[in-house]
Amino acid sequence: MSIVESLRGRMNTIPPAEGGPLDAYIVPSSDDHQSEYTPERWGRRARLSGFTGSVADAVVTRDRALLWADGRYWLQAEKQLDPALWTLMRSGERSVPTLHQWLGDLPEGSRIGVDPRLLPARSFDDLAKLLAKRGSRLVAVDRNLIDADWADAPPLPRSPLRPHPPEFAGRSAADKIADLRAALRAKHTDAHVVAALDNVAWLFNLRAADVAYNPVFLAYAIITPDDAALFTDLSRVDDQVRRSLAGVARLEPYVGFESALRAEAARRRWWIDEAATSAHIAALIGDSARIVERSRSPVTLAKAKKNNAELAAMRDVHRRDGAAMARFLRWMFDAVPKGGQTETTLADRLQAFRAEDARFIGPAFATIAGEGPNAAVIHYRPEAATARAVGADSHFLLDSGGQYLDGTTDITRTFHFGAGAPDQRERATRVLQGMIALSRARIPLGTTGIQIDALARRPLWDVGLDYAHGTGHGVGAALSVHEWPPSISPKPLAQIAIELGMVCSNEPGYYEPGRYGVRTENLIVAVQDGDTPGFIRFETLTLCPFHPSLIEASMLSAEEAAWLDEYHATVRAQLAPLLFGEDRAFLERSTRPIREWR
Amino acid sequence: MSIVESLRGRMNTIPPAEGGPLDAYIVPSSDDHQSEYTPERWGRRARLSGFTGSVADAVVTRDRALLWADGRYWLQAEKQLDPALWTLMRSGERSVPTLHQWLGDLPEGSRIGVDPRLLPARSFDDLAKLLAKRGSRLVAVDRNLIDADWADAPPLPRSPLRPHPPEFAGRSAADKIADLRAALRAKHTDAHVVAALDNVAWLFNLRAADVAYNPVFLAYAIITPDDAALFTDLSRVDDQVRRSLAGVARLEPYVGFESALRAEAARRRWWIDEAATSAHIAALIGDSARIVERSRSPVTLAKAKKNNAELAAMRDVHRRDGAAMARFLRWMFDAVPKGGQTETTLADRLQAFRAEDARFIGPAFATIAGEGPNAAVIHYRPEAATARAVGADSHFLLDSGGQYLDGTTDITRTFHFGAGAPDQRERATRVLQGMIALSRARIPLGTTGIQIDALARRPLWDVGLDYAHGTGHGVGAALSVHEWPPSISPKPLAQIAIELGMVCSNEPGYYEPGRYGVRTENLIVAVQDGDTPGFIRFETLTLCPFHPSLIEASMLSAEEAAWLDEYHATVRAQLAPLLFGEDRAFLERSTRPIREWR
Repeated sequence: MSIVESLRGRMNTIPPAEGGPLDAYIVPSSDDHQSEYTPERWGRRARLSGFTGSVADAVVTRDRALLWADGRYWLQAEKQLDPALWTLMRSGERSVPTLHQWLGDLPEGSRIGVDPRLLPARSFDDLAKLLAKRGSRLVAVDRNLIDADWADAPPLPRSPLRPHPPEFAGRSAADKIADLRAALRAKHTDAHVVAALDNVAWLFNLRAADVAYNPVFLAYAIITPDDAALFTDLSRVDDQVRRSLAGVARLEPYVGFESALRAEAARRRWWIDEAATSAHIAALIGDSARIVERSRSPVTLAKAKKNNAELAAMRDVHRRDGAAMARFLRWMFDAVPKGGQTETTLADRLQAFRAEDARFIGPAFATIAGEGPNAAVIHYRPEAATARAVGADSHFLLDSGGQYLDGTTDITRTFHFGAGAPDQRERATRVLQGMIALSRARIPLGTTGIQIDALARRPLWDVGLDYAHGTGHGVGAALSVHEWPPSISPKPLAQIAIELGMVCSNEPGYYEPGRYGVRTENLIVAVQDGDTPGFIRFETLTLCPFHPSLIEASMLSAEEAAWLDEYHATVRAQLAPLLFGEDRAFLERSTRPIREWR
Repeated sequence: MSIVESLRGRMNTIPPAEGGPLDAYIVPSSDDHQSEYTPERWGRRARLSGFTGSVADAVVTRDRALLWADGRYWLQAEKQLDPALWTLMRSGERSVPTLHQWLGDLPEGSRIGVDPRLLPARSFDDLAKLLAKRGSRLVAVDRNLIDADWADAPPLPRSPLRPHPPEFAGRSAADKIADLRAALRAKHTDAHVVAALDNVAWLFNLRAADVAYNPVFLAYAIITPDDAALFTDLSRVDDQVRRSLAGVARLEPYVGFESALRAEAARRRWWIDEAATSAHIAALIGDSARIVERSRSPVTLAKAKKNNAELAAMRDVHRRDGAAMARFLRWMFDAVPKGGQTETTLADRLQAFRAEDARFIGPAFATIAGEGPNAAVIHYRPEAATARAVGADSHFLLDSGGQYLDGTTDITRTFHFGAGAPDQRERATRVLQGMIALSRARIPLGTTGIQIDALARRPLWDVGLDYAHGTGHGVGAALSVHEWPPSISPKPLAQIAIELGMVCSNEPGYYEPGRYGVRTENLIVAVQDGDTPGFIRFETLTLCPFHPSLIEASMLSAEEAAWLDEYHATVRAQLAPLLFGEDRAFLERSTRPIREWR
């Protein structure tokens, strides 16, 4: 019996005490902490459907099984889903209803189940209201119906905790918790649940390796004016960590979180971030009147505004990461024309260069290394068995990043090893112009990302072209490479003002399906603009040359060319002390002023 | 006894049956229809406070009286408020709490009253929730406490209704109502209240003159699948209007609206635009479960997307309005150096030129005519007694518009009659560059105004300058000159995609308080871009030369100069047939290519 069939059986045998059989069951891709990357143990949607991409929601009804995935995942989903069982719902296509719309159109009286740990409280409430309007009902089923059929599920991870050193963190956990308590007081609240894993890691200055790519660990925290309790698997806590928390926080077992929350619920006025905390947690608090504040967690904003120590560490990481990139590029331009390289050999070699750094932990995400048409697949992830060769006439996009003990990087460069077609050069240059426009922007304090996203698109818009992703995402400091809420994007949701110290990617692109794709990415940080009070400018953190192969210098304005020359001069000055011999010569060649190109 | 004192008396004598005495009473500036411009009869905030500006909210407590007004109105409010009684709350200043925050900080247990006709349902609910969290209560007082003390209040207006001709409207009322019914069906609803006056006027193709500047009339409509009822003062309805509605809508007295709504409430599933319909109307429907849909009225969006007939009429109006502007400018450049002109003589003369058009009705808003420092006051309105002289060395900003039978205009030009200071020319040129950037933009279908607002600001941002207003507002076709929701602005609220046929202003500015102000405004309409499928470009409707006095031609890029030359060539071609003699010569001089300037 397939897992889908067995799920249907379980949907059908919900006892009357719990409301009786379900007509549909939602299996989201998130986990108890609303994470982007989930531990394998919580990969229920992948187990159910076979689809392993990171974002997609499944629904099983009595006679159908559907998976909603956006354009990044359609090819992968078509390969991985059994077409006899599954329907792929292409999110974003005009004719395709959203998951919520589709559920709303189920026959009146439908009972739709979901594990309330897997939906943020606000999503749960919104969906419940929508279904109620349609005469249906959203049912919180307080046990996971996939887990029930997963006897050999892997255990939850419990990687060792390590303190994040004060010289990289800049502020002690005690100070961060004191700030949080002040924020609670200002909103007339006296208790807060920290459920997002990167918020827990940031708040307590701790790191670990429970999930791929992100140095986080499964944990919750409850903060009140007189107590800070950190709930995590205690078997992985050593004395050094215990010492780092002494007088700051109480350590409690992960499994003790729910009962601790229940015990405290009635005594407190809670601040629950309803977009980032599960409906289950909101329900544990019981009476919804106890939740006095539902807006974004103050931890999230504090974490986004990097302090001087975090920025100093990020700058240093970017010098070392840039030097690793330069050494890799020197090697790559030698090796590729000789033959034998593929998308994965290049990605692996880049990682090897990064790994020579004593503070390197691992990649910050799965490297995107796409040759020719694969470069047009925005979230392409090469595998050795199917990787395309990269040769002397290849177009090649490389988007990679590193997690280091002291910081996080994310960089994209696109190359042509021969002579790119004129349209490729023209479009790649427009992408670069967009990146430069954002790099050069001065913006008033208070400006949000949606206001400036178009600055990076305009050179493409001018000729009727665009790219189907945001221009920039927030980036953590030795934390998640995708860190919300900072974002430079056309999406209206959760827009926040860009504040001093926020780190974002700046990565416009252009994609021609089946042919090639271009993306150009630096990380930038918002800094005070000395010349113009009340304004922010962006400092570029990423230090790595742009290769002239896809730049049409004649298209650049005087200001754009000056920016590029100045950037290359900075790259040369910053990286030269870390590079020697052939590598240094490569750096010097690659950072010449434009007038000396060719 | 002052009106404030007498209001306090009435707040104190609310009978126990209605919950007893109030601690505070809110007097918003809006009316039963949530209008920007209200009839004098409903000018309660002005009557209470003496402040006559169009947007400001007052609150009276047992011992205080406060008025919240934004920066546009601070000077006026300081002049008009009695400082012994009133505190001006400067909205937008960092240290000043919003009205809602301030009310939230009243002592726990406070009872705060408001006339529920004067707040949109959503604002009422939001405020009620906020106050409940603080232990206070928002009380809907079902009679206006200012009215009770206003025996000699003027009557409600009842200007004659006139049909808006089909050649200007493009679609019959019957077709518009059929579209509305289809929209209701699609959302599983079967009843809609139209409360916004411009929506009523647009839906029924009727116009009148109940309030200043806007050709609207006091009315409600209730639309169901089998009925369309229009509630308005019947004494002003003539046979022509009755004929135009025959078979389309039932005419009912204005005062019959509430009982009709109550009678229908329980039988229907309502679509109520909770941001544009009063809390009182929502309450009349009774059980809130009957309100199935609360989003923006489909009438609002349909009205915003001008059809071909509306656009043809708008283009024709702009030719005639542009010719009137050109004739005025020719006269102004002769008259001003001779002396004797002031802000109001110029504004009056401009209106006289417009009034020569047989279809001219009146100004579309109070003309802003500001000399020197007055040009820095964004919503300045000159009065004859205090108007500044405009002379041979004056800096002068002129923002005006006309209501015509067939359309609506809104144009701003800024001049210097002598030689502007270098910094004035430099900044005015940046303002022009911003306007040109938006005029030239190509944007993908689906783009919202907040995404492109910065295109117009960038030339100023580049040197650390900005302007404290949006770049553009929607404009009605023979309707309100401020028409929501189209907007090109940094405000995140109510952002909608710019769709084909939407008309917006394009009006960046720069203001140096106490010295001068610059604003440059054309109306633009979103049209299909033939060269780039899936993209929109903007066609400029406004046809009027820019005077070189404040343009530093050397700052313009080749593309900007080409745009300006092309615009002037269009202005010349379009206006020449309407201008003769000296006026034609002025047009030809004013529309020369830049290389022939000076």
